[in-house]
Amino acid sequence: MTAYAAPLRDITFVLDNVAGLAKVTALPAFAEATPDLVSSILEEAAKIAADTLAPLNQVGDSQGARLENGVVRVADGWTEAWNVLVEGGWNGLPFSPDHGGMGLPNVLNTAVHEMWQAANMAFTLCPMLTQGAVNAVESYGTEGQKALYLPKMVTGEWTGTMNLTEPGAGSDLAAIRTKAVPEGDHYRISGSKIFITYGDHEMVENIIHLVLARLPDAPAGVKGISLFIVPKFLVNEDGSLGARNDAVCASLEHKLGIHGSPTAVMAFGEGEGAIGSLVGEANRGLEYMFTMMNHARQAVGLQGLAIAERAYQQALNYARERVQGKPTGWTGAGATGIINHPDVRRMLMTMKCQIEAMRGLIYSAAAHVDVAHNHPDAAERGRAQMMADLYTPLVKGWSTEVGNVIASLGVQVHGGMGYVEETGAAQHFRDARITTIYEGTTAIQANDLVLRKTLRDGGQGLRGLLQDVATTAGAAESAGLAIGAKLNAATATATACVEWLVGAGKEDPRLPAGAAVPFLELMGILVGAQMMAKGALAAKGGGDAFLAAKLVTADFYADHVLSRVDGLGQTILAGSAAIMALDESQL
Amino acid sequence: MTAYAAPLRDITFVLDNVAGLAKVTALPAFAEATPDLVSSILEEAAKIAADTLAPLNQVGDSQGARLENGVVRVADGWTEAWNVLVEGGWNGLPFSPDHGGMGLPNVLNTAVHEMWQAANMAFTLCPMLTQGAVNAVESYGTEGQKALYLPKMVTGEWTGTMNLTEPGAGSDLAAIRTKAVPEGDHYRISGSKIFITYGDHEMVENIIHLVLARLPDAPAGVKGISLFIVPKFLVNEDGSLGARNDAVCASLEHKLGIHGSPTAVMAFGEGEGAIGSLVGEANRGLEYMFTMMNHARQAVGLQGLAIAERAYQQALNYARERVQGKPTGWTGAGATGIINHPDVRRMLMTMKCQIEAMRGLIYSAAAHVDVAHNHPDAAERGRAQMMADLYTPLVKGWSTEVGNVIASLGVQVHGGMGYVEETGAAQHFRDARITTIYEGTTAIQANDLVLRKTLRDGGQGLRGLLQDVATTAGAAESAGLAIGAKLNAATATATACVEWLVGAGKEDPRLPAGAAVPFLELMGILVGAQMMAKGALAAKGGGDAFLAAKLVTADFYADHVLSRVDGLGQTILAGSAAIMALDESQL
Repeated sequence: MTAYAAPLRDITFVLDNVAGLAKVTALPAFAEATPDLVSSILEEAAKIAADTLAPLNQVGDSQGARLENGVVRVADGWTEAWNVLVEGGWNGLPFSPDHGGMGLPNVLNTAVHEMWQAANMAFTLCPMLTQGAVNAVESYGTEGQKALYLPKMVTGEWTGTMNLTEPGAGSDLAAIRTKAVPEGDHYRISGSKIFITYGDHEMVENIIHLVLARLPDAPAGVKGISLFIVPKFLVNEDGSLGARNDAVCASLEHKLGIHGSPTAVMAFGEGEGAIGSLVGEANRGLEYMFTMMNHARQAVGLQGLAIAERAYQQALNYARERVQGKPTGWTGAGATGIINHPDVRRMLMTMKCQIEAMRGLIYSAAAHVDVAHNHPDAAERGRAQMMADLYTPLVKGWSTEVGNVIASLGVQVHGGMGYVEETGAAQHFRDARITTIYEGTTAIQANDLVLRKTLRDGGQGLRGLLQDVATTAGAAESAGLAIGAKLNAATATATACVEWLVGAGKEDPRLPAGAAVPFLELMGILVGAQMMAKGALAAKGGGDAFLAAKLVTADFYADHVLSRVDGLGQTILAGSAAIMALDESQL
Repeated sequence: MTAYAAPLRDITFVLDNVAGLAKVTALPAFAEATPDLVSSILEEAAKIAADTLAPLNQVGDSQGARLENGVVRVADGWTEAWNVLVEGGWNGLPFSPDHGGMGLPNVLNTAVHEMWQAANMAFTLCPMLTQGAVNAVESYGTEGQKALYLPKMVTGEWTGTMNLTEPGAGSDLAAIRTKAVPEGDHYRISGSKIFITYGDHEMVENIIHLVLARLPDAPAGVKGISLFIVPKFLVNEDGSLGARNDAVCASLEHKLGIHGSPTAVMAFGEGEGAIGSLVGEANRGLEYMFTMMNHARQAVGLQGLAIAERAYQQALNYARERVQGKPTGWTGAGATGIINHPDVRRMLMTMKCQIEAMRGLIYSAAAHVDVAHNHPDAAERGRAQMMADLYTPLVKGWSTEVGNVIASLGVQVHGGMGYVEETGAAQHFRDARITTIYEGTTAIQANDLVLRKTLRDGGQGLRGLLQDVATTAGAAESAGLAIGAKLNAATATATACVEWLVGAGKEDPRLPAGAAVPFLELMGILVGAQMMAKGALAAKGGGDAFLAAKLVTADFYADHVLSRVDGLGQTILAGSAAIMALDESQL
């Protein structure tokens, strides 16, 4: 079992100096989010992470979730841990007090969830998805649905799920076949859903499924999908539980990682049909689901950061303790840990600097969401929404790819011990691997960034974002930070790529689509560098070792990560012709 | 269960056009290696890979090796598969007919092992290590040892192991503590060894352990290590088996992957001490072990290629069959597999082109070994040995890192199905992860390349290698291949890095050591590009679709892989100061 200690000073540093927490808490909606309250929330969440969730991480991995006689059992201690969250009201942190929530900023919820995802990713999928389901009901449900379901979902007494994927409909939601047939004041839902995270489990008395399905007269494709609430147990008007609904877990997947999280095949309507109620208007389900998905995508990007932080802590501890040979150039007295071997240090720095960059990006995206939803001024809301929209594919696409690389470096730092399961490094590596896949693969994020968010407006939005990067780069350069000039040069490369994408898109859409993932990586690295520059600007002249380190990690990031932008630019600007040049049979 | 079909035309193309098989078979030592014999060996080996080994790959993963009442059980069918290799005499392919071998080239053995490693990596570790043990006994054993052990090791009736690692001595062999005390005509060995691949198993009647240990009067450090033969069962002079030796498997590791391969903790001398005999001279064990390790390092690099090929085949099949949405820009009639989604195609091309580059590099290294060991002319032997020495860290360090990336892309192509263990893609991902660790981590390969093989001769050898790359680049440029000019530019970057490394090494050895892994990656990419250019030069003007594809993969490699050289050059030339700039406490 490995420990986790929340990096509270790093988290606070990014909240205050990179993401702009003060701008968020200055919004009228968040008048209660005083600095004292923020601190105590972070400290309490850190304790839960370290004391309650982290010790259960390896337990969940080794025991896994099991389907036994129709009941989905979770690992030892997990139900008790869930009850800790329920009792603290933690699930309601970002929700309106109207439904029992705390009414605190999304960016604060993000910081709390970073700690929990790092402590126990398989567990924290449950609050993550429950919050997504609350969002959907809060945003699109009728008053009756809100009254019936939200109070217990906000407390976490009931959990929520998202039921999108079907065997023939993964990335392509147009292919959804689950049916919803009207019957009186409700609908009968029938169909099969796969990959349903926490689709069933024993931790709570009821589970509220949000299910995409088609009405009998629905148009084909994505414009014929509607969203339904399908509870595991029907809920009476007084809030008490009624009959068991026809929505059951048919089996659980045997997965590479996140063993503690039950991934269910859900059968709706094996009998007379599951009873559900329509959310919002018919045939607008995909649009509603996208709102949730944007939340979920930022949350999965956060998992990339979190698993990276966990892997880093474990590797750092091992590197301090493990003695193995005399490091090259070592002049210190006596034995030293492998932390002083230059390449081990290079790996640790590669992990550390990208963790800082990801945290900056993800918290900034979360703060933009707060502003977009709560600023009194519509123009400010619009600007923040545009930034959130552009950041979301970077948060999801880039942070999860980087999270995988960092989890792999965590194994590498351990050498042979990293390959032995008992050590724990391998679990992070296995757990991390899902993050580039679920809630839309990296390619889907990249297509979102390029095809939707760059080509549709002719590159307008991205040029604005690049201007914002250039402003930071200029400030860094003026302040004499080495990253400044490098960030400026990289921004010019990115700008050239945007122009190429826009032009190529007019020629053949396969060209920008083929360049989309390299472009996503380029933009992730670039905006990550902007975050490092912001941090370095804030830390400059500060007196202590923590602040001084921020200048070094920014330098390291510039030399070891930002340096990749040129090559990515070459790849993109070379055109994508070679990608599709072979006939299928030649592969 | 997933199938594997050996890519015989690709293998033959690289043997003939990139690695220069003809130059090897022209050596007097290999007079019997006629084209017909080579073909039939490759075809037979391909059948064994497809029919015997590949079907057991998932069986081995799910059953694993188990220690039951002191016996190490292997998975169902594995003993029968081993007997297929024994009956065919396959283990003796590269060994002298004097000891029952076939006397065929190392490069041919490499091609055969590529197929078997791809078919079943956990299984093929056993012949791989047995061949390494034969090499050691053949090279350094007494005539008596050779007569006693080699016949049955060459047939594979007995298997071999390498016992280096101890709990406190992984990468640092100077810390080895296992003792060898002289007693009459033999030695008593006592100590604990860990991570011993196929340290014990039930497939054969005897196992010959090669064990590093210290004599009582040995100097400290690596100059006091000797090599011993310690058989599981003592062998009588007539070759029959005697008493059980005091060398037992204490436990097996629970690993991330290669479950079918037993990784043993070996206890030597828990009782009266294991009986062993000294190989070669006392205190020269490390030197002998290094000869074996060079073989083993090339063999592990080959695993990187092999697992990549296996992952590619599986991803390609899935991408052909899986239908999901209409690909961007798709104008074909009807439904098509995801193979026509631009980013899926980009991933497949990224896999394919690097597999071709690795195969060229690895087979070339193997051919250099053949020339170095068998050429009648000493100067030719010397030149080939120098190339083999420089290639070995690239083969091991670069191919295993690339193998991991490709196995991960294999998961990604499968989307959610890639995360489900039954699919098989995840097994390749788990299996691949050990390859950058055992037989020396990537950092150790990089230090070998930079500190030993570049700084010691002031960059002389590497300049020669870069000149060789430049020659290919020039030829490619003259032939009008796009990769030519790009390879030339990248060679200039590499040259600048060599000069920087040599200079920085004089200043502070930590500087080149910190840049070593980026430099290894740069050199791997570069020599890989040289191999692609050689292939394209050979394919140019050829009439069929297979040869035409070589030109496209070379173009793709240039745009998507070789393009990384600039960034790696920036990283190296920026200096390594930021790597060690933080105090330990600031990490």
